[in-house]
Amino acid sequence: MRYELYYWTGIQGRGEFVRLALEDAGADYLDVARKRGDKAIMNYLDGMHDGALPFAPPFLKAGRLVIAQTGTILAYLGPRLGLVPGGEAAEFHAQQLQQTIGDVVMEAHDTHHPIAASQYYEEQRAPARKRAKVFREERLPKFLLYFESVIERGNGRQALSRHSYVDLSLFQLVSGLDYAFPYAMQRMRGRIPRLRALAERVADRPNIAAYLQSARRVAFNEQGIFRHYRALDPAS
Amino acid sequence: MRYELYYWTGIQGRGEFVRLALEDAGADYLDVARKRGDKAIMNYLDGMHDGALPFAPPFLKAGRLVIAQTGTILAYLGPRLGLVPGGEAAEFHAQQLQQTIGDVVMEAHDTHHPIAASQYYEEQRAPARKRAKVFREERLPKFLLYFESVIERGNGRQALSRHSYVDLSLFQLVSGLDYAFPYAMQRMRGRIPRLRALAERVADRPNIAAYLQSARRVAFNEQGIFRHYRALDPAS
Repeated sequence: MRYELYYWTGIQGRGEFVRLALEDAGADYLDVARKRGDKAIMNYLDGMHDGALPFAPPFLKAGRLVIAQTGTILAYLGPRLGLVPGGEAAEFHAQQLQQTIGDVVMEAHDTHHPIAASQYYEEQRAPARKRAKVFREERLPKFLLYFESVIERGNGRQALSRHSYVDLSLFQLVSGLDYAFPYAMQRMRGRIPRLRALAERVADRPNIAAYLQSARRVAFNEQGIFRHYRALDPAS
Repeated sequence: MRYELYYWTGIQGRGEFVRLALEDAGADYLDVARKRGDKAIMNYLDGMHDGALPFAPPFLKAGRLVIAQTGTILAYLGPRLGLVPGGEAAEFHAQQLQQTIGDVVMEAHDTHHPIAASQYYEEQRAPARKRAKVFREERLPKFLLYFESVIERGNGRQALSRHSYVDLSLFQLVSGLDYAFPYAMQRMRGRIPRLRALAERVADRPNIAAYLQSARRVAFNEQGIFRHYRALDPAS
């Protein structure tokens, strides 16, 4: 099947979690907005197509199905792309981990937009500094140490017992946080050796390595979810 | 099967979305923390049990499975409790709608805690007023009108074509927003007739009506996710 991925052009954003799964699996897919422009997304959001009405991108068209929400798209693609171990225990484990990754992503976004996604960062600098401090000191360590514990527990019983879309998403999470919060991530480095090793293994996978070198991988930037502002990640 | 639900005592919180599904289906379940205290939750978060490690409650124990994250729990329970129409199109549609409900819930929470969940509302009143204004004027209408459109499109093709866990969650969402933002919800009333009708139908379902009258339904309060603070929902 040829999948159609719909996500805004110009940023990695939440679409990147889906893109990494499609790329890693070598799936046949069309990155629709990059071909036809963001208008193709708007038509779906405006209800001009059959099937489920997405609230926001990313969404995936798979045959007649329209699937929105990153975690739901990956729950759909995982078994179909061989990106989750077999069995319901592993599938539900992968889903809950992906949701938790989604929660960190939301919180990383809100460090630069704590008041309104519809306003510029520059309009909310003061609360952004406060929220980013809490994120760096409390939330980021809590989430990353959680994932470190999950990998450590592994032992073949869990979703992370072999390669899965959760691995790809953890790679993306770590990459984004490294970009946005280099100093905070440097301070965490020694405490998350398993997560670091996992991210490196993912980066070395042939399809991922090729993708990261390609023009399809948009660079992190200050229109995306993971943004680097010095005020939000001071050196000490 | 006897399910075990783990969620903090004293509040409805995210656990309520799971509780409503179990109650509506007349499922056999134990609300563990209400029986044994919140310590029972902490033991899981501290990794003292087998199975998946939850990041936070709610989580559900179903036989040997431990499933965390509200949306994932409902994706698991839906087909087992007869709370989602058959077929993968309906299941994935339900999942994506539930994720979107989860997103509103997160945003409703952040109106009173825009800076730090770990600090009191009283410590973040000023940014809370700003974020709540954006929520009332932009986000709440956008989300509710989206759900209204989804119901309107229905026509038997979608998850909401017959009773599902999404209906129950929409009821809970509307109830929580009515509690937290009565004025803003009053202003929305005429624009969401289908969503209002759906919430009323859910409230009238025999098992739900009995549950809402029972002591098991904890009242909304200012320790929960949906909180009523006059400063965050002015009369005009």
